[in-house]
Amino acid sequence: MSQYTIKDIARICGVGTSTVSRAINNVPGVNEKTREMILEAVKKYHYVPNNSAVNLKKSDSNNVLVLVKGRNNPFFQSMYSVFESELQKYDYTFVLREVGTYDDEMRVAQELIREKRLKGIIFLGGLMENPEKELRGIDIPYILCTVAVNEGDNEYSIVTIDDVKESMKAVEYLCRMGHRRIAMVTGLQNDNSIGYHRLMGYRKALEKYGIPYDESLVMHMESDLPDYSYENGYAVTKKLLERGKDFTALFAASDTTAFGAYRAILESGKRIPDDISVVGFDGIDMTNFMFPSLTTIRQPGEKLAAESVRILNDEIEEKITTQKTLFPAELIENESVKRI
Amino acid sequence: MSQYTIKDIARICGVGTSTVSRAINNVPGVNEKTREMILEAVKKYHYVPNNSAVNLKKSDSNNVLVLVKGRNNPFFQSMYSVFESELQKYDYTFVLREVGTYDDEMRVAQELIREKRLKGIIFLGGLMENPEKELRGIDIPYILCTVAVNEGDNEYSIVTIDDVKESMKAVEYLCRMGHRRIAMVTGLQNDNSIGYHRLMGYRKALEKYGIPYDESLVMHMESDLPDYSYENGYAVTKKLLERGKDFTALFAASDTTAFGAYRAILESGKRIPDDISVVGFDGIDMTNFMFPSLTTIRQPGEKLAAESVRILNDEIEEKITTQKTLFPAELIENESVKRI
Repeated sequence: MSQYTIKDIARICGVGTSTVSRAINNVPGVNEKTREMILEAVKKYHYVPNNSAVNLKKSDSNNVLVLVKGRNNPFFQSMYSVFESELQKYDYTFVLREVGTYDDEMRVAQELIREKRLKGIIFLGGLMENPEKELRGIDIPYILCTVAVNEGDNEYSIVTIDDVKESMKAVEYLCRMGHRRIAMVTGLQNDNSIGYHRLMGYRKALEKYGIPYDESLVMHMESDLPDYSYENGYAVTKKLLERGKDFTALFAASDTTAFGAYRAILESGKRIPDDISVVGFDGIDMTNFMFPSLTTIRQPGEKLAAESVRILNDEIEEKITTQKTLFPAELIENESVKRI
Repeated sequence: MSQYTIKDIARICGVGTSTVSRAINNVPGVNEKTREMILEAVKKYHYVPNNSAVNLKKSDSNNVLVLVKGRNNPFFQSMYSVFESELQKYDYTFVLREVGTYDDEMRVAQELIREKRLKGIIFLGGLMENPEKELRGIDIPYILCTVAVNEGDNEYSIVTIDDVKESMKAVEYLCRMGHRRIAMVTGLQNDNSIGYHRLMGYRKALEKYGIPYDESLVMHMESDLPDYSYENGYAVTKKLLERGKDFTALFAASDTTAFGAYRAILESGKRIPDDISVVGFDGIDMTNFMFPSLTTIRQPGEKLAAESVRILNDEIEEKITTQKTLFPAELIENESVKRI
């Protein structure tokens, strides 16, 4: 397969690209000797013009879009280099778009399909209440990666973890460590996405351990701050502490939220874990260097990204129609939980 | 301008895309009525085939590559959504590639120019000892964004801050706060990049305040850990503390490094800022939620990204040849420095 571009031929012949183009397309205005030299170079280097039929397939873009619901999310960002290198293996170009919590990612996807001639889309994060319905307008291969789905059907591919089960794991761990007054910081009030699923896991764990659910210990993120941000975790934990309700442990719906919670707790004069134990979710790098290091549920980010690319490629090559993969997450026991 | 693709025409006509293609290109094997219907749809929806002369320019990619030296760098990652939205304004597609510290980004750039038909490249971070020489192989418009340059010439565009001057600002601040035993965690031993420039700023500030340079207070990051990572900041600060040398302040070459240093300091039983004051560099989000919040030099990440895109576009449109912009950075006084 030819690797040479028109610029290479131009450089080799010491002429401009427009001269090469005119020579190839037999347009007048090129010196006969120059034309001969160019055509010889074209032959020698097996150069195939872009607009020729041979190149029609090649001239299609190989763009694969990773469409991220959420900006500056360290967990998602840690997956970017995996997406990139895995996409590269299949010769796709990694095109990235981060959209805000309130943006309509389907509209964005449809615009980009048209503008960027995408080969496929990986939807990263966010929520699809009813994927079959919402994804009706997406007429190229796609896959959902760690997208929360509330109504299942069989019309889409997905790679994710079980947010309910894994959150349950976190809260059951706190229960086993003797905690019964466990607070939670979760997503926005009207969140039906991972915040909701992780809250369900929390409730199920409490139920399993016979602990009554106390709504006053559950904090929803503020809608006027970016959700899952350090800032939001800080703000709502501060509010929770100011309520004066007694609790010995806090489960945060993300590590970034837990990070903000740390500051609120420490600022109030309480110690972690001596006064309040904290568990996060995601397992991002920084958790190991927090002080104390954060006990958390580690999502297998690399596997989620690599498997998404593999399945998407199989879809693009029409080897499969859809495929669903669920990965387990892992409880990482660090220093932020105390047995009481 | 036509917005319709061959897939749209195929859907409208209820046929496959290959049938549309055959009908348009007058290839046999299409039922005459079908052909008529397709050609009517083509006319009605102003569909322009990809391989037509009208579309030759359009079929060029609009890919602009942001080539990042360094993986998982929160400061760079906070700029991605700015690059993306600014590139979008000019109708470019944001293509991202992160490379490791030891990777040859010029080789990567040349591969991608060929594979992805790039319109331009933004080099983000890293070092070019001699940009004119190193960038000789890059025959499309490009710009350096926060790239350290040691030998200046006029052949490239750059948007950056003055690392020497801004580091000086950080260390002069510590001097003004009464500190004279100031340690530094900087880049790798053989780093000629921002680590080197920031070390120069440190030395100049000490000199200005008549403080002798003490090599035993300068720690270089470990070469077997990712540079500028939490982990590296932790490891080298721990080593520094174990040396038992007396110091009252630490200047870290990045906020992530300072974050790791926090853990090493706190773990050793010392307090911040009561025993050791800390100053970082970059001004990433998390610094405001560290405990204590980190005093740092805030780089104007959004401006750096937006200005890079603006200049690159001017280059692509041949409005300018090169342009250099230097932005000021800002000292953010937070809680991590104590006057002594």
